[in-house]
Amino acid sequence: MKSKLLVALVSVLVAVATNSYAGKDGVDFPQGYRNWLHVKSMLIQPGHALENPFQGIHHIYANGKAATGLKTGTYADGSVLVFDLLNYAEKDKTIQEGERKLVGIMHKDSAKYSGTGGWGFEGFAGNSKTERLVKDGGKSCFGCHAPEKGKDYVFSALRD
Amino acid sequence: MKSKLLVALVSVLVAVATNSYAGKDGVDFPQGYRNWLHVKSMLIQPGHALENPFQGIHHIYANGKAATGLKTGTYADGSVLVFDLLNYAEKDKTIQEGERKLVGIMHKDSAKYSGTGGWGFEGFAGNSKTERLVKDGGKSCFGCHAPEKGKDYVFSALRD
Repeated sequence: MKSKLLVALVSVLVAVATNSYAGKDGVDFPQGYRNWLHVKSMLIQPGHALENPFQGIHHIYANGKAATGLKTGTYADGSVLVFDLLNYAEKDKTIQEGERKLVGIMHKDSAKYSGTGGWGFEGFAGNSKTERLVKDGGKSCFGCHAPEKGKDYVFSALRD
Repeated sequence: MKSKLLVALVSVLVAVATNSYAGKDGVDFPQGYRNWLHVKSMLIQPGHALENPFQGIHHIYANGKAATGLKTGTYADGSVLVFDLLNYAEKDKTIQEGERKLVGIMHKDSAKYSGTGGWGFEGFAGNSKTERLVKDGGKSCFGCHAPEKGKDYVFSALRD
């Protein structure tokens, strides 16, 4: 019984620590996003203006609400889009996926993130679910997305 | 009533035509595969041995049974893997997806396709769901997959 109690106690402490790490306005790590709709992919090469940090091959994933948003152009609160960035290697006339560089997230919550178009922005380093990369509350992310106001600040478009 | 009858009749004729096109051993077009698990992606460049017809960026999708197979190494009948091949264009230090070249399919049915490792192979041209590309019952496809016998003839491996 003592060991069970200890496990329970440690679980609570880990949960508290993870939660405090996120902060009250933090965007959650998008659990299970690899099973969401794969929207599209793109490769950014060295020399691109967004090379740092976005050089690599990225895949865009949408949860159910975001998939609806991509069709209608309007995103309900709870819509989540993921920008999954991997390193790549050119080899024998192929380009192959490598290790994950970061996971970028847009999470729609009109009230909570009213200062950045209703979207919360976050990034997680590599395969970490706790090491957060966005330090300015998403202002710089939003700055780049702002021209896409007519598409509710989303760059990606649905394709067949 | 007459127009309804006509619509019903045309529907039946289309269904019969589609079915006869497939033939009794034909692999079905994988309806809805764009919502399946995105397994991985790869880009094949000009000059690669498989350039014709596989040059392009491809995404691999797995239905539920195939996703289980990727984890266990054993694929139940009904497992379907899709090789979704798109053209691409290099532009301004990016590589962007273009039009679809073909949709390749592996469909597991141990009895029906016992001559090709238990897998039925098929390809559909571009965005067509009826224009079939495989003319030899999948023998050449299987020839290339044969060295992967230890993985039940599947090249792809699951990644996070």
